[in-house]
Amino acid sequence: MDVTKINNPDFLKRLSMDEMEGLANDIREFLIQRLSETGGHLGPNLGVVELTLVLHKLFDSPKDKLIWDVGHQTYVHKILTGRGNQFGSLRQYKGLCGFPKRNESEHDVWETGHSSTSLSAAMGMAAARDIQGKDAEVVAVIGDGALTGGMALEALNHIGHEQKDMIIVLNDNEMSIAPNVGALHNMLGRLRTAGKYKKVKDDLEYLMKKIPAFGGRIASAAERVKDTVKYMLVSGIFFEELGITYLGPVDGHNMNDLIENLNYAKKTKGPVLVHVLTQKGKGFKPAESDNIGTWHGPGPYKIESGDFIKPVDAPPAYSKVASEALRAVARNDDRVVVITPAMVVGSKLVAFQKEFPDRLFDVGIAEQHAATMSAGLATQGMKPVLSIYSTFMQRAYDQIVHDICRQNLNVVFAVDRAGLVGADGETHQGVFDVAFMRSLPNMTIMMGKDENELQHMVYTALKYDKGPIAVRYPRGNGLGVEMADELQEIPIGSWEVLKEGKDIAILSFGPMLQTALDAAKRLQTDGVSASVINARFIKPLDSGMLRKLANMNMPILTVEESTLEGGFGSAVLEFFHEQGFHDMIVDRMGIPDRFIEHGSVKDLLKEIGLTAGNIAHHAKLLLPKHRQRA
Amino acid sequence: MDVTKINNPDFLKRLSMDEMEGLANDIREFLIQRLSETGGHLGPNLGVVELTLVLHKLFDSPKDKLIWDVGHQTYVHKILTGRGNQFGSLRQYKGLCGFPKRNESEHDVWETGHSSTSLSAAMGMAAARDIQGKDAEVVAVIGDGALTGGMALEALNHIGHEQKDMIIVLNDNEMSIAPNVGALHNMLGRLRTAGKYKKVKDDLEYLMKKIPAFGGRIASAAERVKDTVKYMLVSGIFFEELGITYLGPVDGHNMNDLIENLNYAKKTKGPVLVHVLTQKGKGFKPAESDNIGTWHGPGPYKIESGDFIKPVDAPPAYSKVASEALRAVARNDDRVVVITPAMVVGSKLVAFQKEFPDRLFDVGIAEQHAATMSAGLATQGMKPVLSIYSTFMQRAYDQIVHDICRQNLNVVFAVDRAGLVGADGETHQGVFDVAFMRSLPNMTIMMGKDENELQHMVYTALKYDKGPIAVRYPRGNGLGVEMADELQEIPIGSWEVLKEGKDIAILSFGPMLQTALDAAKRLQTDGVSASVINARFIKPLDSGMLRKLANMNMPILTVEESTLEGGFGSAVLEFFHEQGFHDMIVDRMGIPDRFIEHGSVKDLLKEIGLTAGNIAHHAKLLLPKHRQRA
Repeated sequence: MDVTKINNPDFLKRLSMDEMEGLANDIREFLIQRLSETGGHLGPNLGVVELTLVLHKLFDSPKDKLIWDVGHQTYVHKILTGRGNQFGSLRQYKGLCGFPKRNESEHDVWETGHSSTSLSAAMGMAAARDIQGKDAEVVAVIGDGALTGGMALEALNHIGHEQKDMIIVLNDNEMSIAPNVGALHNMLGRLRTAGKYKKVKDDLEYLMKKIPAFGGRIASAAERVKDTVKYMLVSGIFFEELGITYLGPVDGHNMNDLIENLNYAKKTKGPVLVHVLTQKGKGFKPAESDNIGTWHGPGPYKIESGDFIKPVDAPPAYSKVASEALRAVARNDDRVVVITPAMVVGSKLVAFQKEFPDRLFDVGIAEQHAATMSAGLATQGMKPVLSIYSTFMQRAYDQIVHDICRQNLNVVFAVDRAGLVGADGETHQGVFDVAFMRSLPNMTIMMGKDENELQHMVYTALKYDKGPIAVRYPRGNGLGVEMADELQEIPIGSWEVLKEGKDIAILSFGPMLQTALDAAKRLQTDGVSASVINARFIKPLDSGMLRKLANMNMPILTVEESTLEGGFGSAVLEFFHEQGFHDMIVDRMGIPDRFIEHGSVKDLLKEIGLTAGNIAHHAKLLLPKHRQRA
Repeated sequence: MDVTKINNPDFLKRLSMDEMEGLANDIREFLIQRLSETGGHLGPNLGVVELTLVLHKLFDSPKDKLIWDVGHQTYVHKILTGRGNQFGSLRQYKGLCGFPKRNESEHDVWETGHSSTSLSAAMGMAAARDIQGKDAEVVAVIGDGALTGGMALEALNHIGHEQKDMIIVLNDNEMSIAPNVGALHNMLGRLRTAGKYKKVKDDLEYLMKKIPAFGGRIASAAERVKDTVKYMLVSGIFFEELGITYLGPVDGHNMNDLIENLNYAKKTKGPVLVHVLTQKGKGFKPAESDNIGTWHGPGPYKIESGDFIKPVDAPPAYSKVASEALRAVARNDDRVVVITPAMVVGSKLVAFQKEFPDRLFDVGIAEQHAATMSAGLATQGMKPVLSIYSTFMQRAYDQIVHDICRQNLNVVFAVDRAGLVGADGETHQGVFDVAFMRSLPNMTIMMGKDENELQHMVYTALKYDKGPIAVRYPRGNGLGVEMADELQEIPIGSWEVLKEGKDIAILSFGPMLQTALDAAKRLQTDGVSASVINARFIKPLDSGMLRKLANMNMPILTVEESTLEGGFGSAVLEFFHEQGFHDMIVDRMGIPDRFIEHGSVKDLLKEIGLTAGNIAHHAKLLLPKHRQRA
């Protein structure tokens, strides 16, 4: 069938199993075809086709609440809830979001992007239902990777305690974004194969059949053993110990099995976990055989060959440059270790891991632990590098404050995907870290103007020994500048004048400086001479340079790809007023006080006015002849 | 013996068990005596006397690393490491810290205050040891309450995976700060009593003795069952499933048992968890029989009667006022529910819990889950109130950004202990929340000038339906003002002029306004007329009032008990410059860019210059005749 014609999931209730199978195939074909053009989270969605079909067949969304952890596996859900016709605009500006969005559909009851939130949300919804005396099923679908996130474990602890009716579908594909790590993963592996358990269960049943014949104390002892052992063996003891009924493992591509187990879960009182085994990328050979995460969220690709369509000869990605610099330093300094929360592939650390297998710790989706483990390493004289996306750093805020900054430990933060990230959208924009890191004592924050400065900054951070230091770098590829052979230290707190000017100074950092330089060129043609300053240290500021600008009474325009509230521009304001320069003309440009949706970074920057033309326009308004109050 | 004469723990190695018992008694007596004068964490420390003695007898601190979770149970450790003579200054300004401090002793290898960090720290230290090829034991001591914190569970998952040598002492006293909740707690309870398990184990052994006689398939099946069942029964299956060897339960007040089990743990390869049962308050009757947490961290008390020494007729605590206002609103609005992470007692919610047992959720030490569960409740039209200390709100930063603000949900934050907290010191100061909440879109933040305004703000927050809203209030007692009978809504974003003046305007919020008013009085005597403005909305600002001040070209002094970097004062600067008022004279006073240690709030405010005298001094410097640049 034409899956773009589906309006809502009601029709599933009437489909035969054969028709369900046919629909599963149609959806797979549709996804493989459409995502080959737009890119998107192919692997996770191919893995949950049958599961999503069965959930919408058995439950009445939106009365029943379907909550998707992380949310990148909701494409099938979006198709079934009437959005198949929007896939041409998937993850594009003003187009269909790659995650659940409440303003897209009443069937999207919970928005996500970050992992491990679904169980807490489900607990809240179940509690609300019971207080309101309503009748609704609450179903959370969570991956085995997301389950190791601390908040999911906190939620399990509370869910087991409260004993409210709810269903947790554990979508176990043995991968988070990359292959999974952790003891829970190993435990699930044992359940998955279930060999040992099943054999013992069979043995036990055989034994129990024989023993009663002997009567007396043997029989009663045997009975008690049987009860306990059955309880332990039949089920996922780990979950049962937490008070959660365990069902499974269930073949996630067998819809009959899924229906049987989910129906049983529906009838069971209290919280139930249904352990569903799925295969990421199911139905598309290149994705099925992927075991490192390449097909988790690919860009456009060729269906026949499974080749990615990529621009040739692109400059190296910033993350690649950062990890290569780390590798270079690590060769001469065996104190250097890298900690990553499940982002070996994402942050391009594969080569580092290969060269230094004992000095890279992939801790799984566990940002809090990653940060505090880094602190622990630092107390022992190591040089830990916490490689982390800006947006996921938010998960470790307290650990950064309480464990790292407060103890003033030498932890290096390699802050990947700082600034707007584009297609992943508002859950993933790296725009808050400047504001939240800047207000922490002992913290140093820098960002390079290009990939060459980035490599020097990685080196600088590893040489620095006076406390925590963060190197921010954006998503995507560098500018293609020449890379120095020798790494050099950049003096802490030193800025750099990229262009001298006498009428106004534009202060910026990171790749945004290119836009600032463009703006300066435009101003030049209008007869305005603008300085452009590489404010590569966001903390500490270059007080000497700022004082010089103040003494010249130079109008200042700050431009940043981070929040205006409490961001870099505010730091500049704070400096001037603290130093008694109360009459400085300062205007700030940056991310406004709202969440920024998905789209290409270029489109987003245009929307919020961070373009060369608009920067030039704002700069001119600060010149004496144009100045006016709002 | 005189425990204040102890210099280091070496002498313990030579003590007989009798002498150890004697020392345990001496330490208990010392603690009960000294803490009756200064107050402090009596309960937790009385519970770990024997455990601490044994740890220091068996391990070589500081070569071996003893890591204390939360850290409020380190008084015995402090005594044994030469700090008994400093207990007169416990938790006082410039005195002995109530938590581990690396600058106090080389035996304090890890600083804490917040819970659940010890396992990650221990993992980091064990990893460093192995990379460095050193030989040291790593021992983390964690309570059963702290174990439910998500980051501790994240760490368990990684520790079980890595299989590094380390010892986890689970100090199980069935309480966190308040009585414990959660499925893990129930699981530990089963291990604790171990009745069912032990019985089955006995049955099984009896059975196994009988069965082999039958031979053949029965015997071999029985053998396999025995192996599996033994593995499951003998040990804490929950931990064993995670790859961690379980020993216990051990009587934590029996030093022979402790020594035997800890020695066995030392010899065991890989991670070992020793489950130690202790009694909080052991040896002091009133504390032993406490089952709600009163003796967790009492103030001064009378030893004979167990009565607390408290000022009579003190005004009500802010937290009491907040929770009473919640209760009053909840009576008329059944959408109101309260979520607290283990702070029913701390935030004075006992009466609310009693009146609305189904509408208060104590989720244990699990701030992340608490926040996102609140979000889940809000999606269903409930009015969740997340009651949380400012410092612990840091743990839920990402949940506030990603789940609450991004979805713009009607969650009310009752932010307890906002501002300096005094004796608990730098790990607990509530000084970052203004900066970190202010930069989040959709957030509204307010703080009342006194307890009466606080109750109106709680009412206002519960009426508000346009997104998340935070009511901050300080630790300690109110001012003793008259309480209105009827609760009223305060217009969002409206400030209040407390005193009119024409020379300068002092902008502040919360109880700091009293100091500002004092400063204004001092200025008056010097002939300076100061306005004092109750900037009770930190976000949004009162733009009308700010614009009026700007049009009058009034010098502005902002005063806040929160970080200067990115705080309220910065918001004021941002406003003026954004609106084109580039020549406003603005000075900001607040918490400087460093961590503030323990001491009375009064002493701390004096240290950082937030006194009436100093505010008046700064105000004068902004007047035209005194103005100068630094």
